[in-house]
Amino acid sequence: MEVITIKTSRKTQFLDITDLVQKAIPENKSGICVVYVPHTTAGVIVNEGADPDVQRDILNIFDKLAPEDFHYYHIEGNSPGHVKSTLTGPSVVLIVEKGKLVLGTWQRIFFGEYDGPRTRKIYVKFIEG
Amino acid sequence: MEVITIKTSRKTQFLDITDLVQKAIPENKSGICVVYVPHTTAGVIVNEGADPDVQRDILNIFDKLAPEDFHYYHIEGNSPGHVKSTLTGPSVVLIVEKGKLVLGTWQRIFFGEYDGPRTRKIYVKFIEG
Amino acid sequence: MEVITIKTSRKTQFLDITDLVQKAIPENKSGICVVYVPHTTAGVIVNEGADPDVQRDILNIFDKLAPEDFHYYHIEGNSPGHVKSTLTGPSVVLIVEKGKLVLGTWQRIFFGEYDGPRTRKIYVKFIEG
Repeated sequence: MEVITIKTSRKTQFLDITDLVQKAIPENKSGICVVYVPHTTAGVIVNEGADPDVQRDILNIFDKLAPEDFHYYHIEGNSPGHVKSTLTGPSVVLIVEKGKLVLGTWQRIFFGEYDGPRTRKIYVKFIEG
Repeated sequence: MEVITIKTSRKTQFLDITDLVQKAIPENKSGICVVYVPHTTAGVIVNEGADPDVQRDILNIFDKLAPEDFHYYHIEGNSPGHVKSTLTGPSVVLIVEKGKLVLGTWQRIFFGEYDGPRTRKIYVKFIEG
Repeated sequence: MEVITIKTSRKTQFLDITDLVQKAIPENKSGICVVYVPHTTAGVIVNEGADPDVQRDILNIFDKLAPEDFHYYHIEGNSPGHVKSTLTGPSVVLIVEKGKLVLGTWQRIFFGEYDGPRTRKIYVKFIEG
């Protein structure tokens, strides 16, 4: 298992981690790769990387789905982050062919920060097969 | 890795791909199977297949969560598709026993089209174990 | 594949299944583990377990996203459960190191009941690697 450390810079943010994940994959091997986030106010998504406005739109809709001004019971004030983390999930599973992540033309892997800025960890586990 | 090609026929749609995925699994082997969609306005879900109204209801709620008339910044007009793709994710991981997908009684695997109609790809990767 | 049987006690509920999943993992082995729910009105999530109010907040937002009083076509009355199941997905994939689930400090694994109370199954499949 490889451990990646990143720093996020905003309250909510999608950070492109595709190249970091690619570096954690063994050379020339094929199989699958689990990208796992050990946090409860963060997640991992795969979506478009070409136009940053796509990430902006997704974050804005997320703010609508889990608004700041809802009647939350958890007193730490980060319940929207827990909801967004639940909606996107802690992990994605990717296919690897000959050491390369198999992604669509427009797909990039993003760390989803929903309660930053913070220092965060990402675990990458490769399974040959 | 097996590649499946499908054609969707509507703007948004859940297309039952269970039989296509089953055909891509090696005979008599056990393990897990990753069904992966290399698109950023599509996804994969597992849900009820018996009553088509279930898929209709899910699509209608998705339209409420990511409405067409929101203030999006991405100018291509398909931001709702990117949001829905993010909410459902690019892949599902299924268990395989002796060459058969292990699904619940009512579960079927659906390709989620959120910006169609289009020709789309699905990757199926089996890992023995 | 290990099969876990649980009973839920409310209409909607997150039930902590971390210890049950841990018991289904072979001792001292490393790899990944798929936790799979064979139901269409349930799911699996990973989120905070320390403060029960976090789960309460997530369930309340889920009720807002898929409300009971929406115009649903499916006549069984459990369409909100199908939507919530679609949003959280049927499975999570976890990393296992030397027989132990690799979870973040605050992370617990929850069975998401969205149309209970019911007797439910959970499948756990370990893949060494």
